[in-house]
Amino acid sequence: MRALPGRALWLILFLVMQSEFAFIDRIRARAQARPSAAPDLVCGIGDDAAILSEREGHEMLITADLLIEDVDFKRSYTPPRCLGHKALAVSLSDIAAMGGRPRHTLLTLGIPRACGDEFWEEFFAGYFALVERFGVTLIGGDTSSAPEHLTLDSIVIGECQQGKAVRRSGAQVGDAIYLTGEVGGSAAGLELLRRGERLSEGISGLVQKALRRHLAPEPRVEFGRQVGERGLAHAMIDVSDGVSQDLAHICEESAVGAMIDFDSLPVAAEVRLVAENEDAAFALAVSGGEDYELLLTASRDAEAALIELSNLCQLRLTRVGEVVASAEPSPKLWLRRGGRVEPLAARGFDHFA
Amino acid sequence: MRALPGRALWLILFLVMQSEFAFIDRIRARAQARPSAAPDLVCGIGDDAAILSEREGHEMLITADLLIEDVDFKRSYTPPRCLGHKALAVSLSDIAAMGGRPRHTLLTLGIPRACGDEFWEEFFAGYFALVERFGVTLIGGDTSSAPEHLTLDSIVIGECQQGKAVRRSGAQVGDAIYLTGEVGGSAAGLELLRRGERLSEGISGLVQKALRRHLAPEPRVEFGRQVGERGLAHAMIDVSDGVSQDLAHICEESAVGAMIDFDSLPVAAEVRLVAENEDAAFALAVSGGEDYELLLTASRDAEAALIELSNLCQLRLTRVGEVVASAEPSPKLWLRRGGRVEPLAARGFDHFA
Repeated sequence: MRALPGRALWLILFLVMQSEFAFIDRIRARAQARPSAAPDLVCGIGDDAAILSEREGHEMLITADLLIEDVDFKRSYTPPRCLGHKALAVSLSDIAAMGGRPRHTLLTLGIPRACGDEFWEEFFAGYFALVERFGVTLIGGDTSSAPEHLTLDSIVIGECQQGKAVRRSGAQVGDAIYLTGEVGGSAAGLELLRRGERLSEGISGLVQKALRRHLAPEPRVEFGRQVGERGLAHAMIDVSDGVSQDLAHICEESAVGAMIDFDSLPVAAEVRLVAENEDAAFALAVSGGEDYELLLTASRDAEAALIELSNLCQLRLTRVGEVVASAEPSPKLWLRRGGRVEPLAARGFDHFA
Repeated sequence: MRALPGRALWLILFLVMQSEFAFIDRIRARAQARPSAAPDLVCGIGDDAAILSEREGHEMLITADLLIEDVDFKRSYTPPRCLGHKALAVSLSDIAAMGGRPRHTLLTLGIPRACGDEFWEEFFAGYFALVERFGVTLIGGDTSSAPEHLTLDSIVIGECQQGKAVRRSGAQVGDAIYLTGEVGGSAAGLELLRRGERLSEGISGLVQKALRRHLAPEPRVEFGRQVGERGLAHAMIDVSDGVSQDLAHICEESAVGAMIDFDSLPVAAEVRLVAENEDAAFALAVSGGEDYELLLTASRDAEAALIELSNLCQLRLTRVGEVVASAEPSPKLWLRRGGRVEPLAARGFDHFA
């Protein structure tokens, strides 16, 4: 379940706008209303994964991600093999964002008649390729027929050492903010798909890269796990809703603000395929969503180790800004561009918007 | 994920019939093809819940149940409060069928626009009433909008002592077969709903009971947990697909056969609302499904303790038959009626039929 911003602000917002996050917030408040009947629950709703303290020295992480046809993907432009990959990748990404190691997975399928044998052969080729690559085991799930829309719920169980899970709530004023890889590529890919581009042999390398970024994102499993194990970050999240939206989640949970440098954001080259100018490219990169890169805050003392780790993982790592103090009602997110500083809107994907 | 019958038979059947169970079997074969990369996995796909050995002396159970509108329920006849209850009840029932204690739950929601605030208020009233009653904690999940059909995936994590999980595969020749409560009531309720009956104040007690059996089934949480803790059963399953179908799952996994006594089956009184004669009533009771009673096999030595436990839980318990030897290609299920013995077809709900 995604992060839930500050209660008071959202109670007000809820009156004017029924957003996905407000909806989750209501459920969260209700789930937490019970006296602590679960002494082993370290963290429930409100992070990339829930944390359970299953045994001494060890914590269990669990996350679920729902993908529904025509909302989260279209079958018309999604090769089944990519869909199988993505169904698992998005949940592996949540475990990575907690600094954990993925172990087991459950898959729940709502299956319309239109999906035949060939579809499932390809789907599971993509799914099990990722299962093999990251050494997880499919241990259960459920199947149902579906009237029309293919529905996938991907549940991943991971683990980490006790106290090593990297939560959204740990960001500290003065932390530097880092981002793996590049952002905006997935949103560019989605726009190209909408314009009729399809994944095939004949397309240009850059178009292919954009489409792949959207259709078959690469979860940062190894980097995330080692960040957690080595205690290199104070807070971490994966970029599923968009950099500004996900950074806002960290800010809300940590009660801090954040300043992003316009010039530092690692905008994917593919963004230029759909963005007319620098401003449009930045907008897509900062709010596009579904990049599944990791966004983390860390002490500057950890920078050398983070860079070393990113090199080890053959992953670009960019310092994109810093954590700053925040006081309501002033904005939490700021953008520094040239000599100017201006508020940055937390824009991104909201299922109910 | 539901049980998966014997491989060879199903490989043949798969050529002529693409059933839900055959589909799951293919996934199961693939999931098990990997060398044992998960030393903590006690039981994966193929029982009411997966079993993980998380720490010394302790096992974790995990199950997922998908409910899709217009396949598993219709919103037109399902009060939202009942749906919230049922979403959790069906997964609690899986944990009960393993002899475990439910601990945590995750809920994944695909939400169409037609479900507004009032719907969710009622839904969560039903959901959290069960959360409170059984002392579980909602720790996560996901939300997405859905184009049309409300979609619910209910994940429950439970626990039991090491080696105490009651699996489908433990039935022994000579075991007696027991059933909690009564069966057929849910199928009768569904038929009444199809005929236009609705849950309301004005309806007769028996009709109300039938509708409630279908709309808000009662998971046998306490009975199942104590059967597991006290080691009273060799095999157990919950009656979700239908007595004959679920008994066939036990038979396949245990490589045994089963004999049911026609006169012993505890047919719910509500069945007579929709069944014209004794044979029709029996057919509905033996294959109706969604009763969420527990079906177990146990040594006759355990009978006194089982009866004592059922009294403690204020639950009817009936000996309905016995486990017998089985050799392919003869049928696994048999029905004893008067002096005659005849094969019993494993009929029940198959999502893909």
